[in-house]
Amino acid sequence: MAKKVTPRGQDYARWYTDVIQQAELADYAPVRGCMVIRPYGYGLWEHVQQALDRRFKETGHKNAYFPLLIPESFIKKESEHVEGFAPELAVVTHGGGKKLEEPLVIRPTSETIIGHMYAKWINSYRDLPLLINQWANVVRWEMRTRLFLRTLEFLWQEGHTAHATYDEAEEETMRMLEIYSDFAETDGAIPVIRGRKSESEKFAGARHSYSIEAMMGDKKALQAGTSHNLGQNFAQAFDIKFLDTNNQLQYCWTTSWGVSTRFVGALVMVHGDDQGLILPPRLAPIQVVIVPIWKKEDERSRVLAAAEQIEEVLLSENVRVELDAREQYRAGWKFNEWELKGVPLRVEIGPRDVENRQAVVARRDRPGRADKKTVKMEGLAPRVVALLDDVQQSLYDRALQFREDNTYQVEDFSAFQEIANGTGGFLDAYWCGSESCETAIKEATKATIRCIPFDQPKESGHCVFCGQKAAERAIFSRAY
Amino acid sequence: MAKKVTPRGQDYARWYTDVIQQAELADYAPVRGCMVIRPYGYGLWEHVQQALDRRFKETGHKNAYFPLLIPESFIKKESEHVEGFAPELAVVTHGGGKKLEEPLVIRPTSETIIGHMYAKWINSYRDLPLLINQWANVVRWEMRTRLFLRTLEFLWQEGHTAHATYDEAEEETMRMLEIYSDFAETDGAIPVIRGRKSESEKFAGARHSYSIEAMMGDKKALQAGTSHNLGQNFAQAFDIKFLDTNNQLQYCWTTSWGVSTRFVGALVMVHGDDQGLILPPRLAPIQVVIVPIWKKEDERSRVLAAAEQIEEVLLSENVRVELDAREQYRAGWKFNEWELKGVPLRVEIGPRDVENRQAVVARRDRPGRADKKTVKMEGLAPRVVALLDDVQQSLYDRALQFREDNTYQVEDFSAFQEIANGTGGFLDAYWCGSESCETAIKEATKATIRCIPFDQPKESGHCVFCGQKAAERAIFSRAY
Repeated sequence: MAKKVTPRGQDYARWYTDVIQQAELADYAPVRGCMVIRPYGYGLWEHVQQALDRRFKETGHKNAYFPLLIPESFIKKESEHVEGFAPELAVVTHGGGKKLEEPLVIRPTSETIIGHMYAKWINSYRDLPLLINQWANVVRWEMRTRLFLRTLEFLWQEGHTAHATYDEAEEETMRMLEIYSDFAETDGAIPVIRGRKSESEKFAGARHSYSIEAMMGDKKALQAGTSHNLGQNFAQAFDIKFLDTNNQLQYCWTTSWGVSTRFVGALVMVHGDDQGLILPPRLAPIQVVIVPIWKKEDERSRVLAAAEQIEEVLLSENVRVELDAREQYRAGWKFNEWELKGVPLRVEIGPRDVENRQAVVARRDRPGRADKKTVKMEGLAPRVVALLDDVQQSLYDRALQFREDNTYQVEDFSAFQEIANGTGGFLDAYWCGSESCETAIKEATKATIRCIPFDQPKESGHCVFCGQKAAERAIFSRAY
Repeated sequence: MAKKVTPRGQDYARWYTDVIQQAELADYAPVRGCMVIRPYGYGLWEHVQQALDRRFKETGHKNAYFPLLIPESFIKKESEHVEGFAPELAVVTHGGGKKLEEPLVIRPTSETIIGHMYAKWINSYRDLPLLINQWANVVRWEMRTRLFLRTLEFLWQEGHTAHATYDEAEEETMRMLEIYSDFAETDGAIPVIRGRKSESEKFAGARHSYSIEAMMGDKKALQAGTSHNLGQNFAQAFDIKFLDTNNQLQYCWTTSWGVSTRFVGALVMVHGDDQGLILPPRLAPIQVVIVPIWKKEDERSRVLAAAEQIEEVLLSENVRVELDAREQYRAGWKFNEWELKGVPLRVEIGPRDVENRQAVVARRDRPGRADKKTVKMEGLAPRVVALLDDVQQSLYDRALQFREDNTYQVEDFSAFQEIANGTGGFLDAYWCGSESCETAIKEATKATIRCIPFDQPKESGHCVFCGQKAAERAIFSRAY
């Protein structure tokens, strides 16, 4: 029986979990709030990892691995940090059958343990900058969980760097945000807004937090990556000092930045439709599926041979291709299945195609007969490669158009409320910078400040809530 | 000041930890028994990962990710498994500030949670074989720990597969052992003995365990990889069933197999010498270090330009190269440092070399002036590539020779005892198969059965301990 997902218009949340489970990206684990990332979902994550890891290494970062278990006392050393993370900790109290003298927490993030080690490793300015990244699992005891978006355990990368000056730390923080933007837009085909977090939304322990924000298919925002300038907060808490060129002992300036498996949730929600996933070719575990079609037994071997030939020629172009030669399913069932799984291109080949030395190529992002193309075998591989690029670009363009169509510049709060509590979307409005306006807006509309975009108008204006003079515009939205 | 490691002959254990800390492979973490894998050590692990992951994917396996936290009750479902792992568990009793209803254990290995999911995913013979691997961290509450060899937390890959028949599971178990052997020998330059574990040494819950065993520089054994045929033990405990081609419900046959960060410890101990690490080129994070040498300031730019040219030409041959242009260290200090770090080849270039359009190449595995070679710039890149292959092969040959020199075929127990309690080494002896002889030998010599090698003589013999008829020879040794 063909699988079917709940239409987005009927129940977006249900559509989301239907797609993830039916496309076999992930499944629920036996422990509340935990998930299993299935091979298809993990394949997607592996491409995310490769795309980011390559960029980290190109900019001089090296990977390392720090322990999962952190002494409980470490979390308490930075006052804002403990306030932010204490309520979310998983605590190990017993090991090897005995009660531990000091409980250990499972890392919710690693600033503390890494800070402790950096204090040991850094002595002089010659040891700086120290540029390390870690691919790891972390645990945060969340109450309301959703596959990929918020789970007790999740996978991520966390970069942690130490510098000799504030300016160098700030430069690094921005460099990594740019890397995240480039990754999200180029590889994920997800347009993002780069900006600064408000004080109330910044990372617990940071001096400034920056983020990239993306609009999901239901017009809510999702923070797709964050980069923090930690100032000297953690350096002071963990005593990370260096001798500068004048032989003076100074505290380091540190940063941290991360992207997590949440990003998979963003890919689902930005590109997916009522048929299921649509994966951007650059990250898709399978870029092209070949579906051979035959009715009579004597057609079978000819069609399969041609399908294998297509597979071979695409493999030689480094296309990630899968030949679905399963005999227990009909072609229509397979079409449905691979559409659900969001494979960007499908190549169909039947007996008449074999005779005419051709195949039919269908794009996942433009379903229906009208957009199918018949392509001669001779030019198939370059045509497929070009089409993959075209799908990648089209997905980006479509997502950008959708965001622009659903972003509203508002100057008064009644218009703000009407949109925020109505159709939803991004609200681009002047904000005076006060936490009380931020809170009042949130209470009235559930919209929070996603970021204060780097891209700002030249002139100042008036706060959308209080009407006071405001120097900057902020992006408000309900968010995941 | 130049770093110096304790000579092996003086204190092998101390040499081992000196090398690891001074070469910056790893460091001690603040929690007892935990370690930090530093960038240089993690770089080595990344090459181990790539070499294995490629082989897993070539044989049809896909990666996935299962949760860190397992309900305590799961561990108790397979009787041998709980007996083996219960004493080593780390237990989470509190989450989000509250006591949990059921404690959760941090995975010591994932057969149980994966078994639970497989029961959900597998319905018919069409779902088999299911071939999944996971790269993950695990925690085992060990009492006596050593960097890389035995730590509370370690990194590994664990493969978990399900099959329709015993024979297919057995075939998979052996296939993965062969992959481990090929990886260890081809990439790690570590010769291994393939064989079956004795009943007392097998994995808790397995029907048969197989392993690859390597000889370390102190003649002790280290298990470098294991592959387990789990029979239907976990399938029965977790109800993993499938409808066979006759529509009959059957239990699956499962396997599991793993290689961990222990392998890094093996690389240290098999190849290292009193100067430090010697890394096999195929896994070395840095394969070639270029050390420019100048005295007068006017020589500096010419030498550096030539060094950069060498770097470029080696990079274009995909050689992992590092140019050490640091000004605060003298060439001698750098030689010492890169020898400690085990970089396979060093290229030295000074003013006279620049004039003569040449460079000097030194092999890490053959220190001293005699083995340095002057190579013309024109042919440098291919020569370096060939030398890397030669170092790789030489390391393997040397390790194999060492193992052969220290393996003894013994037929009586007094000779066995003399060697085991004296110089040490691998003892290749007939064994009747009884656990009582195995235990008595262990008590008298601390030597355990590492494996019963696949490679056996045609004739039978007499047990080295009891003198009873014995069908097979076993490899006995003290072990890590």
